[in-house]
Amino acid sequence: MKPLRQWVPMLEWAPAYNRQAFGRDMLAAVIVTMLLIPQSLAYATLAGLPAQVGLYASIVPLILYAVFGTSRTLSVGPVAIVALMTASAAGAVATQGTPEYVAAALTLALLSGLILIAMGLARLGFLTNFLSHPVISGFITASALIIAASQLGPLLGFSNTGNTLPELGTGLINGLRSVHGPTLALGGLTLVFLYAMRWSPLEPNLRRTAPLLALVATTTLSWWLGLADRGVAVVGDISGGFPPLTTPPLEPDLWSTLFMGALLISIVGFVESISMAQTLAARRRQRIDPDQELIALGSANLGASFSSGMPVTGSFSRSVVNFEANAETPAVGIYTAVGIALVTALFTPLISHLPLATLSATIIVAVLSLVDLPIIKRTWDYSVSDFAAMLATIGVTLAVGVESGLIAGVALSLGLHLYRTSKPHSAVLGRVPGTEHFRNVERHEVETDEKLLVVRVDESLYFANARHLEDRVQELIAARPSVTDLILTCQAVNTIDASALESLETINRRLSHAGIRFHLAEVKGPVMDGLRKTELLQSLTGEVHLSTYQAWQRLHEDS
Amino acid sequence: MKPLRQWVPMLEWAPAYNRQAFGRDMLAAVIVTMLLIPQSLAYATLAGLPAQVGLYASIVPLILYAVFGTSRTLSVGPVAIVALMTASAAGAVATQGTPEYVAAALTLALLSGLILIAMGLARLGFLTNFLSHPVISGFITASALIIAASQLGPLLGFSNTGNTLPELGTGLINGLRSVHGPTLALGGLTLVFLYAMRWSPLEPNLRRTAPLLALVATTTLSWWLGLADRGVAVVGDISGGFPPLTTPPLEPDLWSTLFMGALLISIVGFVESISMAQTLAARRRQRIDPDQELIALGSANLGASFSSGMPVTGSFSRSVVNFEANAETPAVGIYTAVGIALVTALFTPLISHLPLATLSATIIVAVLSLVDLPIIKRTWDYSVSDFAAMLATIGVTLAVGVESGLIAGVALSLGLHLYRTSKPHSAVLGRVPGTEHFRNVERHEVETDEKLLVVRVDESLYFANARHLEDRVQELIAARPSVTDLILTCQAVNTIDASALESLETINRRLSHAGIRFHLAEVKGPVMDGLRKTELLQSLTGEVHLSTYQAWQRLHEDS
Repeated sequence: MKPLRQWVPMLEWAPAYNRQAFGRDMLAAVIVTMLLIPQSLAYATLAGLPAQVGLYASIVPLILYAVFGTSRTLSVGPVAIVALMTASAAGAVATQGTPEYVAAALTLALLSGLILIAMGLARLGFLTNFLSHPVISGFITASALIIAASQLGPLLGFSNTGNTLPELGTGLINGLRSVHGPTLALGGLTLVFLYAMRWSPLEPNLRRTAPLLALVATTTLSWWLGLADRGVAVVGDISGGFPPLTTPPLEPDLWSTLFMGALLISIVGFVESISMAQTLAARRRQRIDPDQELIALGSANLGASFSSGMPVTGSFSRSVVNFEANAETPAVGIYTAVGIALVTALFTPLISHLPLATLSATIIVAVLSLVDLPIIKRTWDYSVSDFAAMLATIGVTLAVGVESGLIAGVALSLGLHLYRTSKPHSAVLGRVPGTEHFRNVERHEVETDEKLLVVRVDESLYFANARHLEDRVQELIAARPSVTDLILTCQAVNTIDASALESLETINRRLSHAGIRFHLAEVKGPVMDGLRKTELLQSLTGEVHLSTYQAWQRLHEDS
Repeated sequence: MKPLRQWVPMLEWAPAYNRQAFGRDMLAAVIVTMLLIPQSLAYATLAGLPAQVGLYASIVPLILYAVFGTSRTLSVGPVAIVALMTASAAGAVATQGTPEYVAAALTLALLSGLILIAMGLARLGFLTNFLSHPVISGFITASALIIAASQLGPLLGFSNTGNTLPELGTGLINGLRSVHGPTLALGGLTLVFLYAMRWSPLEPNLRRTAPLLALVATTTLSWWLGLADRGVAVVGDISGGFPPLTTPPLEPDLWSTLFMGALLISIVGFVESISMAQTLAARRRQRIDPDQELIALGSANLGASFSSGMPVTGSFSRSVVNFEANAETPAVGIYTAVGIALVTALFTPLISHLPLATLSATIIVAVLSLVDLPIIKRTWDYSVSDFAAMLATIGVTLAVGVESGLIAGVALSLGLHLYRTSKPHSAVLGRVPGTEHFRNVERHEVETDEKLLVVRVDESLYFANARHLEDRVQELIAARPSVTDLILTCQAVNTIDASALESLETINRRLSHAGIRFHLAEVKGPVMDGLRKTELLQSLTGEVHLSTYQAWQRLHEDS
């Protein structure tokens, strides 16, 4: 068991908390809050939920992460990709705008919370490794494109629901007939303003106020000119005050339907969050405990599910901002939560005038920065199979949906990994004349012995490649009738599982029937420890040699 | 494209066929036929099909394998495990004894044929590697136990259908009330006779006639004493003559329902067949072409589906007999087919008197030799994770069914493999004083430098362990504030995929933020070729050193 301080990392930093840290953390909290207000409203809308749900999800979860999280600078809350995944999973069981839809979103947060905590307690964080980098970056690019496409409708003044590029494309073409001039003008101007601020030479913290400025300005304009009456879609009446306590529905059927969606949300959310946390921690030589992070993010999602929220995770953009504002401790999360709670309590009535087009513009600017096209080219240059997995993820995500896209990517990268290791590189070796070195006979001028066959295999031996080794040995000796001794050099063999052990026994037996002795050389310590527990070493027709050279010397002299 | 001789291996051996080979092959064919008659009848019954279907499946498929197969001694036809899998898959869509059931079995043969041929043409033989040795041997043991349990009913004089041990156990207990004395006497005596012959010191080929002798003797007895009228279950009226031509039903729904079953039958059948073929070929230093074997077994199954047969594959027991009878060419298969065709044409009417208890006794003796309990102990001794996969396969196969058992085993062994490689062994190294060697600081008395951190990772780097490496490096440098240079030695790294490449870039970037230079050492040729195509080498804050010693020398002197 780990000590309490590791379960509750707050106990480590809180006792030493001082005035200087308070000053820095407060400043960072103000900057993060300014960014979080427009983002949380926007991502709740993106998830198909009432805008204030974003604010609700930015209170309790932040406090819980501050207590349980190991990152000093990660900023938790609603994020774009998870919002899209929430919309996709909840949309499969209910219609946007209904209480069932809200209940589905709460259930997703609850399940994600439970899954993350369970993974943390069982130390199953390694499961997230199933998501390879090409799959995750392909997935983010494809999701960002879908999100951007889905926001073009609201920006032009019509609603366009759909989960895939073909659906959104059709909706967009059909909607072009009903473009609404005032909305387009407002949304277009906001978009131009946001990009102008982003590329402006202003001080970074000033630039970062752009989304909040746009929000305040367009809301004021909307209220003043009564834009809602002129056909501009606005957030509309929303309940003010603190987030109501909620109990997510306890329906086994709903849970099992939403389980897969919640699992994918958990994994994607965790992978994004942990890589951000690690990157930031590294700059200050701080440590992140991945298993504890699972528990912290799980608690944050549990908190969201009981306080009218939505699934949350660590945010790229806000974490960077928090880090650059010199946040010193996770207390920033608590101050930010207090700030959002004040905004929620005091200003939500004003938000009813906020035009949806403003939120769409905010979302488009935020997600387009996630699209990473150069990495597609770089992956293609480096590895065809990684490229294939990435392309499948992007294609299936765009054409079929986010869950299918992720699953296709994971399945293909697993399959390709097994394929790659199922036919490991192996070489017939000869001796570099006058030395103790042995090299591939096909690449170097080396000395060979027609009675000795030296084979090197460049991969750990396990079930996926065990039979390939049998076939390869078979092929080699069938072509060399004069061979009396075969030496397998194992310097690249890090493990031998039970399947490979049986294959070695099979090879030994087959070679013995063919009158050939079977030797091993350069077996690593841990591998040898394992082999000593088996009967292979007794039944081995040849010997285990420390080095290939020793084996060669012994057998070459013999003959 | 491979040349025609490799697509049709018969073209290689047929032109050189001579009288001596003919003599040997004929003798082997007689012995194999004697074994095949009782086995084919028994396995057809086991598959829930009319007994003569076993004979039908022993004609056309054998000829096709002789034309397309690359093994000189493999004996193809109905086998026990595949018969059980056929019963399980066909039983899920139809009831035994109905025409729909027969059609389902034909469809399974057709689909297996198509799947095997497709895998052979696409060179997808590596997919069979997903079945690890522990999974396959656990599966065979569990299947054999289920088969033996299923035959106790007919041996005691009642029918007991069921696909799992709990079902069969319940059926057995319920059936004990209706044990039929004469059947039990006949079956018991047959069982004793078969075991007595098996353990007798007689000449092997004589011993092997036991099942045929038992068949002829009990059939004669049954006909003479009119046992059917006394309540002994017999095969009953069956159609004689050559196998009727059949067209498997072309129903897309049926095809998709049976696909998974057919896929598993194909893979299990192929794995069994190829390992037998390889073992026998090795003894004579002959070669097996796995991809061509897929095509040959696929043709055999296609042939079975168009000639009233059932799924077939290479048989353990008959192949060994064939080999030991000095079979010289695949022509044995053709002669055996002719023998079975003659028996089918002339003697099928007699087979109607054959007691089912005789077939059950034959099956029990045959399958119990497949149960391998010592390997469970050996696997436990060698590797806990392989043992877990084996136990899951056995447990799920016995409790839930053959298909679920196989799938559970494959899923678990894949998961465990990824788990094993996801946390690769790594070590901090120090220099063995006065030498060029570097060893684990925790195991050896070595020289270290507080500014230099030398890390060795004992596994290829790919998506499943890429992030672990990031975490590990993070952890190491967080604990060593004085480090200025980190050297990663890569002698055990056989591949670096795109995920791992990105992790190396991340590590490089993070170390650079922390003011630490990142060096690589002992990078293998092919891995280096890959890295040269990337930007890592340019952005690397340190250097790539040929050996760990060189890196040490350079950096140790620097400091």
